[in-house]
Amino acid sequence: MEPSQTLTLGDISREHRFVHANRLAVVDGDVRLTYDEVDVRTTRLANALADVGVHPGSRVLWLGQNSYRMLEVLIACAKLGAVVCPANWRQTAEELEFVINDLDPSVVFWQHQEVGDTTRSARRGAACAAVWIQHDTDSVSGYESFLAAGNGADQERLVDPSSSVLALYTAAFEGRPNAALLSHTSMMAQSYLLARAMDIDHTTVTINAGPLFHVAAYMWLLPTFLSGGTNVFVSRADPAEVCLLIQAERVTTGFLLPPIIERILELNADGRFDLSSYRASARSDPRWIAMTSVDRSPFGRRSGGYGQSEVMALATYNSIGPDSIGSHGRTSPAARVRIVDADMNDVDTGEAGEIVLRGPIVGNGYWNRAELTEHRRRGGWWHTQDLGRREPDGSISFIAPMSRMIKSAAENIYPAEVESCLESHPDVAEAAVIGLPDERWGQSVEAIVVLLPGAAVSAAGLIDFCKSKIASYKKPRSVRFVDSLPSVNGAKDYATLDRIYGGGNYPGSRTTGRPGQGGGTRRARPS
Amino acid sequence: MEPSQTLTLGDISREHRFVHANRLAVVDGDVRLTYDEVDVRTTRLANALADVGVHPGSRVLWLGQNSYRMLEVLIACAKLGAVVCPANWRQTAEELEFVINDLDPSVVFWQHQEVGDTTRSARRGAACAAVWIQHDTDSVSGYESFLAAGNGADQERLVDPSSSVLALYTAAFEGRPNAALLSHTSMMAQSYLLARAMDIDHTTVTINAGPLFHVAAYMWLLPTFLSGGTNVFVSRADPAEVCLLIQAERVTTGFLLPPIIERILELNADGRFDLSSYRASARSDPRWIAMTSVDRSPFGRRSGGYGQSEVMALATYNSIGPDSIGSHGRTSPAARVRIVDADMNDVDTGEAGEIVLRGPIVGNGYWNRAELTEHRRRGGWWHTQDLGRREPDGSISFIAPMSRMIKSAAENIYPAEVESCLESHPDVAEAAVIGLPDERWGQSVEAIVVLLPGAAVSAAGLIDFCKSKIASYKKPRSVRFVDSLPSVNGAKDYATLDRIYGGGNYPGSRTTGRPGQGGGTRRARPS
Repeated sequence: MEPSQTLTLGDISREHRFVHANRLAVVDGDVRLTYDEVDVRTTRLANALADVGVHPGSRVLWLGQNSYRMLEVLIACAKLGAVVCPANWRQTAEELEFVINDLDPSVVFWQHQEVGDTTRSARRGAACAAVWIQHDTDSVSGYESFLAAGNGADQERLVDPSSSVLALYTAAFEGRPNAALLSHTSMMAQSYLLARAMDIDHTTVTINAGPLFHVAAYMWLLPTFLSGGTNVFVSRADPAEVCLLIQAERVTTGFLLPPIIERILELNADGRFDLSSYRASARSDPRWIAMTSVDRSPFGRRSGGYGQSEVMALATYNSIGPDSIGSHGRTSPAARVRIVDADMNDVDTGEAGEIVLRGPIVGNGYWNRAELTEHRRRGGWWHTQDLGRREPDGSISFIAPMSRMIKSAAENIYPAEVESCLESHPDVAEAAVIGLPDERWGQSVEAIVVLLPGAAVSAAGLIDFCKSKIASYKKPRSVRFVDSLPSVNGAKDYATLDRIYGGGNYPGSRTTGRPGQGGGTRRARPS
Repeated sequence: MEPSQTLTLGDISREHRFVHANRLAVVDGDVRLTYDEVDVRTTRLANALADVGVHPGSRVLWLGQNSYRMLEVLIACAKLGAVVCPANWRQTAEELEFVINDLDPSVVFWQHQEVGDTTRSARRGAACAAVWIQHDTDSVSGYESFLAAGNGADQERLVDPSSSVLALYTAAFEGRPNAALLSHTSMMAQSYLLARAMDIDHTTVTINAGPLFHVAAYMWLLPTFLSGGTNVFVSRADPAEVCLLIQAERVTTGFLLPPIIERILELNADGRFDLSSYRASARSDPRWIAMTSVDRSPFGRRSGGYGQSEVMALATYNSIGPDSIGSHGRTSPAARVRIVDADMNDVDTGEAGEIVLRGPIVGNGYWNRAELTEHRRRGGWWHTQDLGRREPDGSISFIAPMSRMIKSAAENIYPAEVESCLESHPDVAEAAVIGLPDERWGQSVEAIVVLLPGAAVSAAGLIDFCKSKIASYKKPRSVRFVDSLPSVNGAKDYATLDRIYGGGNYPGSRTTGRPGQGGGTRRARPS
């Protein structure tokens, strides 16, 4: 790339040193830093990291909760061409050990508070020669001393914007977690679009209460940073602390997960906190709308869309175009979307298929997973492994991850799609679809269905209903009525369903089906 | 570049075929086309162009006025990896001949109406083997037949987004015009930001009345296209036609040059046209605000910024940050800006220097000018050859092009900066600065000044004033008071000033100064 055409997150900080010099960049407890200060500090930090061997492509691991220091490490890595990975601090020592060994970082920033024991235990178990630096200490071996020892002169190293700068471990769909690599290009293109979709500018005050190891956090953090707004950090989402900060800092938007909002609604039922500065519509609860200023934001009610970590969040935006039939809005002008079958043929409008993407938002695949990366990029399109549908108005519905698939003869059948069809029947409360081993076809589709009270649709009736809605080969061969479905962490527990009802022989699995062990129809009560 | 990370203007059209299928993409006279139709037609056009030899990197010349067909040619070229150049149709046959020979196009789309004679004359003079296709005819050799003969199957050729797709000839600062090359990446990054700054979305109806050979036209056309809005075209800006279209199509924004607005204000003084749908604030004239809905747009009053063709318009935006001291707002999040001296050292805040830029908005230099392109890109920064200043609040003031420079000893002195200083004196109506040949220093600075009626500042007083405001070496050595300055096309006529007052020995010129031939102080009356 021609050097005059390059721009990185480090350059944004360098420019902000002039453009937003005295504007407040970060608030975190007693710490308040301007954009000028953040740029000076991240230059020192970058030079200090270079001094201990961090070079272009090196990984730096963040083993801590939310902190403005994580943003500083991101910008410092950006200036070096290195990659920062904020790990999920809720993981066990064993899981963290996997991350340390897999990422092979040059430097680990770690935290004593709350996660120190797990971290120390993981460190003992891992085979890693990293430099470990505690971030939450005033000691001479801590973050602040490390940073202060760095040279203050900006080297202005030339960094390729297509290089990776952020790594986020994603769900272990493939059996182990993989770190999605995101480039400057991807993060900046998204930030330009998100700033509009989220109504973020230099007056924005963002609360970073959702975890920085989740891609969604960057949907607020980055556009706010790029726009010269203020990022407020809390180590973890405590409802009272969040309320106090919204009130004290006149916070306008942020990443608040639904459970926190639920607790804020309870905590602030008497209006003891003034949350009127807050304009982000995380939900349409009338109590939330009453205690905030959600309706002052033109895009608040239409935020969100479909995306995943590997593309730096959104590929479709609810805010684009008129209201959509699809559940997840319309394609971003930074992407193309296709819905394809296993041979990369476009499926028809209204049919389910894999969502594949192309565009500058697509990241660099996965750290240390060359084969998987190539597989996900095959044919020049990023394969999301998510099931979606193009609706008649051109909008997109996301259905479910394709992590579970049934194979009947040569056909791929996604339980999520069949379940979505069954659950659209007026008599059905809930449905789960499993694959039963079948000598002739490999698998056959069985639906496990909970009916609504008083409903009386028959198995044949449901099968006919599916046949009228989706391709015939996807319809259940058999239906089993039960009183309830087993669940784990709020989601359907397919492992238990397979065990009870005899699911198995899934493609790629070594599980062979066992005959159904569950109770009879309508009497099954999984433990 | 990894194919899954590519996205071009052609891909935007392909995606819009689904996302905005039935939305009106273009209106031009009786022609009304949806996004679905535009995508189908541009695929045919791309294939037709490929059939006559247009390949990646080929140039296609548009010798016509504004038309939806120019947008179609742009998208077709985007699908092929080719470059379209809309030439200035107001040029003479000789000037067009230069463009044809310089661009060496494979295909020329030309227009009979209004510019046919000049075009035919230029064609006869040019040495060019292009295929010539008339766009404004229904004959079998015309545009519509050419397009219809193209295959309807989209080849989906892989095009590198960093390749050039648009060429715009710029002012002949270097003695001849140069065609600035703009990439997909540059045009798309700008469009994401402009859509916000101009409040453009799928409900936007844009009138393309300003010329498509000017970069500013693309500040409306492209974000509207990328957002799924409607582009209305008029062949040239006729005030009555523009008013009729704003009224009939409920136009919301567009590229209207100030002279046209002036004529609309006269024409519509009695309110015969309903322009209430129009929300773009091209100016703050109260009559304009009264007859439009400018104040409904959050960004209307703060549109614009500093830019140039070579970076696809804006590098700074008035809409970024709070109101700025600088005349041209703050740096775009898609750019870095430095103000430098001739050795690429940053000059101090408040000092004038060359504006140099970096970022994805920077284009690919100039067609067929490898040496100039490298020169403008030297040191990894795009040299704008514009004089600017960083203000104390970090914002940017554009002063003037650096096309004129005086060299005194080793110092570069830009007349525009000294004039700007002189004109800030309360007694001065107007000032022009020239360089007088000087045996010892090469040149010395002379100011030609028109005072306001009744003002009585002395030459020494003005020189002292300049010394207090700008570096001492830039202050005029001599001041000459005159009644008026010669002008050409509304700008100061430096050629005449040099001739009358003896300017010369400019760096790089072969002009040697002649002794002043003009009249005496306060009596000079240039013809």
